[in-house]
Amino acid sequence: MLDAFGDQALLNAALRFESALAEADAAEGLIPPEHAQVIISTCRAGGFDPAALAEAAAHAGTLAIPLVADLRGRVAQRDAAAAKSVHRGGTSQDLADTALVLQAKAGVAFVVRDLTRAKAAATALARAHAATPMLGRTLLQGALPITFGLKAANWLASLQAAEVRLEWEAGQALALQFGGAAGSRAGLSGQGAGVARRMADLLGLADPPLPWQARRDGIAGLGAALAILTGALGKIARDISLMAQTEVGEAFEPRVAGRGGSSAMAHKRNPTGCQVVLSAALRAPGLASILLATLPGEHERGLGGWQAEAPVLADLFGLSHAALAALVPVLEGLEVQPEAMAENLARADVGLDTGESEALVAAALAVEVPEETA
Amino acid sequence: MLDAFGDQALLNAALRFESALAEADAAEGLIPPEHAQVIISTCRAGGFDPAALAEAAAHAGTLAIPLVADLRGRVAQRDAAAAKSVHRGGTSQDLADTALVLQAKAGVAFVVRDLTRAKAAATALARAHAATPMLGRTLLQGALPITFGLKAANWLASLQAAEVRLEWEAGQALALQFGGAAGSRAGLSGQGAGVARRMADLLGLADPPLPWQARRDGIAGLGAALAILTGALGKIARDISLMAQTEVGEAFEPRVAGRGGSSAMAHKRNPTGCQVVLSAALRAPGLASILLATLPGEHERGLGGWQAEAPVLADLFGLSHAALAALVPVLEGLEVQPEAMAENLARADVGLDTGESEALVAAALAVEVPEETA
Amino acid sequence: MLDAFGDQALLNAALRFESALAEADAAEGLIPPEHAQVIISTCRAGGFDPAALAEAAAHAGTLAIPLVADLRGRVAQRDAAAAKSVHRGGTSQDLADTALVLQAKAGVAFVVRDLTRAKAAATALARAHAATPMLGRTLLQGALPITFGLKAANWLASLQAAEVRLEWEAGQALALQFGGAAGSRAGLSGQGAGVARRMADLLGLADPPLPWQARRDGIAGLGAALAILTGALGKIARDISLMAQTEVGEAFEPRVAGRGGSSAMAHKRNPTGCQVVLSAALRAPGLASILLATLPGEHERGLGGWQAEAPVLADLFGLSHAALAALVPVLEGLEVQPEAMAENLARADVGLDTGESEALVAAALAVEVPEETA
Amino acid sequence: MLDAFGDQALLNAALRFESALAEADAAEGLIPPEHAQVIISTCRAGGFDPAALAEAAAHAGTLAIPLVADLRGRVAQRDAAAAKSVHRGGTSQDLADTALVLQAKAGVAFVVRDLTRAKAAATALARAHAATPMLGRTLLQGALPITFGLKAANWLASLQAAEVRLEWEAGQALALQFGGAAGSRAGLSGQGAGVARRMADLLGLADPPLPWQARRDGIAGLGAALAILTGALGKIARDISLMAQTEVGEAFEPRVAGRGGSSAMAHKRNPTGCQVVLSAALRAPGLASILLATLPGEHERGLGGWQAEAPVLADLFGLSHAALAALVPVLEGLEVQPEAMAENLARADVGLDTGESEALVAAALAVEVPEETA
Repeated sequence: MLDAFGDQALLNAALRFESALAEADAAEGLIPPEHAQVIISTCRAGGFDPAALAEAAAHAGTLAIPLVADLRGRVAQRDAAAAKSVHRGGTSQDLADTALVLQAKAGVAFVVRDLTRAKAAATALARAHAATPMLGRTLLQGALPITFGLKAANWLASLQAAEVRLEWEAGQALALQFGGAAGSRAGLSGQGAGVARRMADLLGLADPPLPWQARRDGIAGLGAALAILTGALGKIARDISLMAQTEVGEAFEPRVAGRGGSSAMAHKRNPTGCQVVLSAALRAPGLASILLATLPGEHERGLGGWQAEAPVLADLFGLSHAALAALVPVLEGLEVQPEAMAENLARADVGLDTGESEALVAAALAVEVPEETA
Repeated sequence: MLDAFGDQALLNAALRFESALAEADAAEGLIPPEHAQVIISTCRAGGFDPAALAEAAAHAGTLAIPLVADLRGRVAQRDAAAAKSVHRGGTSQDLADTALVLQAKAGVAFVVRDLTRAKAAATALARAHAATPMLGRTLLQGALPITFGLKAANWLASLQAAEVRLEWEAGQALALQFGGAAGSRAGLSGQGAGVARRMADLLGLADPPLPWQARRDGIAGLGAALAILTGALGKIARDISLMAQTEVGEAFEPRVAGRGGSSAMAHKRNPTGCQVVLSAALRAPGLASILLATLPGEHERGLGGWQAEAPVLADLFGLSHAALAALVPVLEGLEVQPEAMAENLARADVGLDTGESEALVAAALAVEVPEETA
Repeated sequence: MLDAFGDQALLNAALRFESALAEADAAEGLIPPEHAQVIISTCRAGGFDPAALAEAAAHAGTLAIPLVADLRGRVAQRDAAAAKSVHRGGTSQDLADTALVLQAKAGVAFVVRDLTRAKAAATALARAHAATPMLGRTLLQGALPITFGLKAANWLASLQAAEVRLEWEAGQALALQFGGAAGSRAGLSGQGAGVARRMADLLGLADPPLPWQARRDGIAGLGAALAILTGALGKIARDISLMAQTEVGEAFEPRVAGRGGSSAMAHKRNPTGCQVVLSAALRAPGLASILLATLPGEHERGLGGWQAEAPVLADLFGLSHAALAALVPVLEGLEVQPEAMAENLARADVGLDTGESEALVAAALAVEVPEETA
Repeated sequence: MLDAFGDQALLNAALRFESALAEADAAEGLIPPEHAQVIISTCRAGGFDPAALAEAAAHAGTLAIPLVADLRGRVAQRDAAAAKSVHRGGTSQDLADTALVLQAKAGVAFVVRDLTRAKAAATALARAHAATPMLGRTLLQGALPITFGLKAANWLASLQAAEVRLEWEAGQALALQFGGAAGSRAGLSGQGAGVARRMADLLGLADPPLPWQARRDGIAGLGAALAILTGALGKIARDISLMAQTEVGEAFEPRVAGRGGSSAMAHKRNPTGCQVVLSAALRAPGLASILLATLPGEHERGLGGWQAEAPVLADLFGLSHAALAALVPVLEGLEVQPEAMAENLARADVGLDTGESEALVAAALAVEVPEETA
C-alpha cells in the first residue's frame, strides 16, 4: 500500500497530471504541440526528488507550487519558451485532487486483489465446513447449533458486500478534477470541456460535467466504504479471536515464525493477525468521520477541509489493506478444530440438528460463488 | 420524520412483521391458516399501547419480548390455540431489525421527497442566475469571477449525488431479517427459505440469501449516506451564510415570522435555516462513526453493537431530514442580491469574464436536469 | 436522568436564570427592586407549558425568544411597567448556556451518586475476592494466575479515575454564561461584572473573568469525561460478559425478572446489563467527537456549532447514567463462581501462585478506599 | 514533534525502560548488580538500528520482542550470563506503554513551550488593542461593537484553559506501566512494588498503586486534551480567516516567503497558517474518538484496542503541535487593520460604545497574566 500512497507515488501521479494536461492543452490548441512534447518528456525523464518536494510542499501548503516550479525549471533547460506552457489552465487543487484520485485508484486495485483472496478463503471454509456442527452463540451465550460453514458463509457475504460498495464508491469518486483557479475553467478560451475530456481519457478517470473541487462526497463515500470493509474484516477477526480463546479452542491462527509470541511467556500463541485487524477496525470509524466532517467547505475552495482529506484517506487505505493483508493468511491457514466444536456444542445441550444451516450455506454459495465459475 | 421513527411507528412496523410472519408461516404449512387469520386481525385491530410497550422494552432490553407477550395475550382472548402460533420461527432481533428497516424505508421516502424540492430549487437558481456574475472565492479569498448559477449548479450536483448514494445504500440495506434464534432458521422444518421469501414480498423488502443479523454493513452504509447528504446540505448552508454576512450581503434567507430574531437585538436577521443545517452537519459525522464502530460484533448476534444502532440511525434520519426541511424554504425563497455580487466582484478587481461559468452551468443542467423533462 | 434534561428541567433552569438575572439587575440598580420582585415571583409561580415552549423554541431556533415573550406577558399582567425589566442585559445564548450548565450540574450529581454505589460494589468484590485465584488473560489467551480481586481492584481504580476527571471537568465547565448580545456585557451601564458575580452566587456557579459563549472547551471537556466514564464502565461490562460465556462460566449477572430473556429460547440467561453498558460505550466516542468538532466557532457567537451541543451533551449524560444504572446492580449482585475460576485456571496449566495479585489488591484498597473510612 | 514520536525516539524510550528496569531489578536484588551495569551500558552504547527494529516490530506485532532479542544479543557479547537478566519481570506492554508515556511527556513539553509563545502573542494583542473598536458578530451577522482586544482576550483565555487541561491530563497519564505478563507483577519474588517505585523515580514518572495496562483512561484523557487544544487553536484561526476575507479586510497573516501563494493566481495572499490549523482541527475530533473507543478492552490485556493507541496519540501530538507551530507566527505577526475595523463597524450602524469591552479586557488580563509577572 506504501506503493500507492508514498511520496514517490504522489509525485508520479502529479507528473501524470501535468503530462496529461500538456497533451490535452496541445490537442485543444491552447499550447504549441512542441511545448507539450517537451513537457511530457521532461515528466517522463524522472530525476525529481520526492523527499525534497514533499518538504517544500509542507512549507508551501501544497505540492503544486514547488512541483510546477521544479518542472518549469527543467522544461526551461530544454526549451525556454515551453516553460510558460507548463500547468496551463490548471491550479493547485486540480493537481492535488487528481493525484489523490489516481492514488486511490491504485489503492482500490490493491484492496480488490486481496479481497479476492479473502473471499476465496472464506468460500473454501464455507464449503469444507458446510456440515461441521458448532455452537451458535448470541449475546456471547450458547444458543442453538449451527455449522461452521454458516459462519464462514456470513464472512463471505460481508466481504462480497464490502467489495460491491467499494467498487460503487470508486465509480463515484475516481473522476478527474479540472476546474482552474475558481472551478470555472477560466482562461482556457472556452476549450475547458475539451481539455477535461482528453485528460480524463488519458488518465483513465471519469469526466464529470462539473469540476468537483468543492463537492467532496466522492472522497467521503470512498472513506466510508473502506471503513465498512475494515469493520467487516474486524467482525471476522472478532469471531476467530473468540473461538481461539483458551476455554473455547475451536480455531487457531496459523503459526507464523516470529509473530504472536510473548516477551514474557514463550508458550503463548497469540492471535496476532486478528489483533492487527481489530486494531484497524477500531481506528477506521473515527477516520471516516473526518472525511464526513470536511464536507461543508467554504465557497469555491474550502479552507482547511479538503486539505485534511489526503492523509486521512491514505490512512484508511493503509489500515484497510493492512487488515486485509493480516487476515488473508489467517483465513487461508485457519486451524479449525471440529472436535472442540462438537464438544462445546454437546456441553451446551441445545440439540444437534444443523440441517437448516447446511441449506443456508448451500444457498449462499450458489448465489455468491457459483461452483462452475469459482 | 417523527412519523417514521416514533414509538407508534415502531409498534406498527413490529406488528407488520408479526402479521407477515403469521401469513408466511401459514402459507408454508407451519401454522394453521385460521391461526394466522386471528393473529393478522389482532395485529390490525390496534389497541396496543406504544408508550407502555416502549417502557417495557427498555426494561427487557428488546421490544420483542413484551410485544410478543402482549400479542399472544390478545390472540389468546380470541382463540387460545392460536396463541402458540404467534412469532413462530422468529426471534427478537428478527423483529427489531426488520422493523428498523421498515422504518428506514419510510424515512428514505421522506428524505427523497424533500430532496426533490431541494433539487428543483437549486435548478431554478442555477437557471435564473446562470449569467449572474459574482466573485469566486477560494480559501476565503477573492479569486476569479464566476456566476452565481455555477455555485447553484454545484449545489444541485451535490444533492443529486447524495440522492443517488442514498438510494443505492437503501437498495443494500432494505432487506428482510429472518434468521431465528441463531441465524440458521432453525425450527422451521426446512421451510425457512419459503417463509422468508413470502415475508419479504409481503413487506416490500429484499430477500437476501442469508439472514444479516450479524452483518451490519447495510445499516452502516445507510448511515454514511445520510451523513454525506447532511454534509452536502451543510456545504450549501455554509455558502449561503457566508454570502449573508453583513460585509458581503449577496444573499439572504427569506424572512419567516417568529424565526431568526434575537432576544437582545430586534433589528437582527439571523440565518436560522442555515444554523439548523450546519448544526446537523456537525453532528452527523460522529453519529455515522458509531454505526461503523458497531460492525465487529460477536458471533451470531453481538452484545451491545447492534443494539446501539436503532437510536443512532433514527437520529441520522431525523437530523438529515430536519436539515433538508430547513434548507428547502431557504433555497426556494433565497433573496439573491445581484447588485451586491457585482459590486463585490468589481471591488476585488479580478476581471469580469464569466463565459466559462455559463458554459459549465449549461452543461451541468443539460446532464442533470434535461430541460424537456424538468 | 430525564429529571435533569427533560423539557421541564430545561424550563426550570431557564426560569432560574431569568429570576437570578432580575435579582442581580435590581441589586446593581439596573432595574427597580419592585420589578425584580414581580419577575421572580412570576418565575416561581409556575404555570408555564414546557411542551408548548419546546415546540416554539424549535421554530424560533432558541428557547429564549418564546420564553422571554411568555414571561414578559405574565409579568405584564401583574405589573405592566415591570415587563420591560425582564431579561435586562441578557441574550438568548446567556439563557441557553447557563440553563445547560445548570442541567449539567444536576446531571453530574446524579452520576456521582451512582458512581459511589458502583465504587462500593467494586470495593466489596475486590475485598471478598482478594485471594480468589483465576486465570489472567491477555490478548484473549490464558496467561498467568491472578485473583479476581485484582480484576475488581482495577475496575475500582478506573471508576475512581473517571470520577476525579468528571469532577475536574465539572469545575471547569459549571460556570455562569453572561455576556449579552455580543459577549461584551453591553447596555449594563458598566455594572456587568457586578450582575455576573451576583448571578453566579445565586445559581451556585463559577464566575469566570470573561463570558465563555465563544469558548466551548468546558462543554467539550465535560463530554470527554462522560465518554471516558462510559468507556470505563464498558471495560467492566466487557470483562463480565466474557467471564459469563457458556464455556467460561466464571460470573453471571444477577437474575432480574422480565430481563435477559430470549423471545425464542426460554432457557437463556443473557447479560442484558452488560449489553446496555457496551451499547452505551459504543455510542459515547462518536458523541464526544461532536463536542470537539464544534470548538472552532465563528466570532462572538458561532453559527451551528454551539447549537449542536445541548442535545449531544444530554445524550452523553443519559447514556453514561443509563450505563451506570445498568452496571450497579450487576456489580452488586454479581454471581461469582470461584470453582469455575479454579477449574479454568487449572486447565490452563500456567501455575497457581497469586501472591503478587493479593499484594496489589491490598495496596490498591489501602490507597483508594482506606478501610477505616470506607 | 518528530523528535518525540519518530522511530529513534521510540527506540530511545524503550532503551530507557530496559535500562531503568535493570537498575531497579538490581537494587531490589532480583538480578546481580554487575548484570545491570552491563545492560545499562549496552543500552547507552547505542548502535541499535531504529528502522530495522521498526520493521521487525511491525512483523512481530510489538517492538518488545525484536528489541529485547537484539539487546540480549548485545549484552551476551559483553557478558553471556547477564543476557538472561535482561527484561526481568517486564512484558511487551510494559515496554510499549512506558515508552509511549515517555514520548508523550516530551510531546507535552514541546506543546507547552509553544503554547507559552502563543499566549504571549495573544496577550500582546489583547493589550495593544484593548480599546480598538470593531464589529462584534454573532451568527455571522453584525451585532454590537466590541474591541479587538476583547476577541484576543478570549483567544488567550481558551489557550490558558487548554494548557491547564493538558497539564492536568498529563498528571493523570504520565505514569509508569509495570505489570509483567498478566498485570500482577508475577515472578518478582514480591519485590514488584519496589522495582516499580525505583523505575518511576528513574524515569521521572508517577508510580500508580496498580499497573494500568488494562485501564486506558489516561491515554484517552490526554488525547481529548490535545483535541480540545487543537479546537481552541481552530477557533482562533476561524476568526482570523473570517477577518481576512476580501470583503472584511480586518487582519492578515504575515507574509512568509514561499507560502500562501497560488499556482494559478500570483496576486493572492492566502491564509495558509489558518489553513493548517483548521485542517488539524477537523482531524482531531475523529482521532480523539478512537482513543475513547479503545477503552472497553478485554481482561488483563485487550486485543486490538491498546495497540491502536500509539499511532493515534502520536498523530494527535503531531497535529496539535503543527497547528500551534503554524498559529504562533500568525499571532505574533498579525497585521491588524484598525481602520478597516472602524469602517466595518460604522457601516453596520450598531453604535460605537465599547466601554464594557475595555473593562472586560482589563479584568481578563489582570486575572490571567498579571502585568507585574508577565
